[in-house]
Order: sequence, then C-alpha cells, then structure tokens
Amino acid sequence: MGAIVVDVMLKPEILDPQGQAVAGALPRLGFEGITDVRQGKRFVLTVEGEVTDAHLAQARQAAETLLSNPVIEDVVAVHALDDSEVSAAAGAPA
Amino acid sequence: MGAIVVDVMLKPEILDPQGQAVAGALPRLGFEGITDVRQGKRFVLTVEGEVTDAHLAQARQAAETLLSNPVIEDVVAVHALDDSEVSAAAGAPA
Repeated sequence: MGAIVVDVMLKPEILDPQGQAVAGALPRLGFEGITDVRQGKRFVLTVEGEVTDAHLAQARQAAETLLSNPVIEDVVAVHALDDSEVSAAAGAPA
Repeated sequence: MGAIVVDVMLKPEILDPQGQAVAGALPRLGFEGITDVRQGKRFVLTVEGEVTDAHLAQARQAAETLLSNPVIEDVVAVHALDDSEVSAAAGAPA
C-alpha cells in the first residue's frame, strides 16, 4: 500500500490564531528562539498498490479542490510518503 | 530565517472522523483509487538565523510537550524546512 502526503498551510497573509497561541505559549514553557509558528494541515492518502504518477496527479487535484480552500490556503507539497516516513508513522516518533 | 517543520498525526488506532469525511467525499467528486485518508497537523516554526541542532532538539521537545497530545497523537517528523519547500510555501503551489 502506498501513501501520498498533502501539506496545506494558510496563506502567509492570512492570520493564524492557532499558530499565534502556540507561539505565545512556547516562551512560557521555556522554549526560546522560536519567533513564529504557523499551523497547517497534513493529509495522508492511502492508495492501492504503489504510488504512480496518476495517483499523484489525482492527489494534486484533490488537494486543490477538496483538501484546501484556495481563498485562504496554499497546497505547499504533494509527494509520495517514503518508506522511512511510513515506518516512523507506524511506530517510533521521529 | 530558518524554519522547522513538525508533523503530528493521530495514532493509527485512534478514530479520525475528519479523515473519514474526506475519504467519503473523494469518490463522490470522482476521485477513485484512494482507499483511506488520515488528517493530521503540520507546524512550521520560524527560528532566528540558520536551523541548528539545538533548534531541532528544542523543536523535538516542544513537539512532544506542546504540539502533540501523546495519548492520541504521534510526532511523525521534525525536520528543517529546505529552501525548495520555503519557496513553495511562499509562492506557487506544488
């Protein structure tokens, strides 16, 4: 089973209150040196068999039409999940 | 300015209603061949200057303590955002 990752982030000019809340909490918890946080979405699409170019094209189209709101969000990446990521996702944290 | 990406996904055994809703909508919109969808979170942390190992260690710790709920979520990746991704995030969709 292959998997495709679609990353969606708010456009840079769109306010991100969730990210700001995280950025505000980090110094209170002792994390210094992180100046900004933006929060987005990550989709993992499972496909039958190996990931083909057709699957990727379909994922790209789904990303633009269903997985993101093009008014406020950008699809920043659509790529096949490599094996190291699959094992990380299934087991130990990175 | 460097940036670090933290990817957080629900653990495989945790029900993901958002992902299921997307998976249910895909065939109705004509996307076939995608058998499952899981939705997670993607954080982009901006740091001052270049991304160092210290920044990554801090991001990893923040990922485990603030950005994810370890009861239901896994931190699947913590890595520096490379330049190609930065330009993609700033401009054209991938």
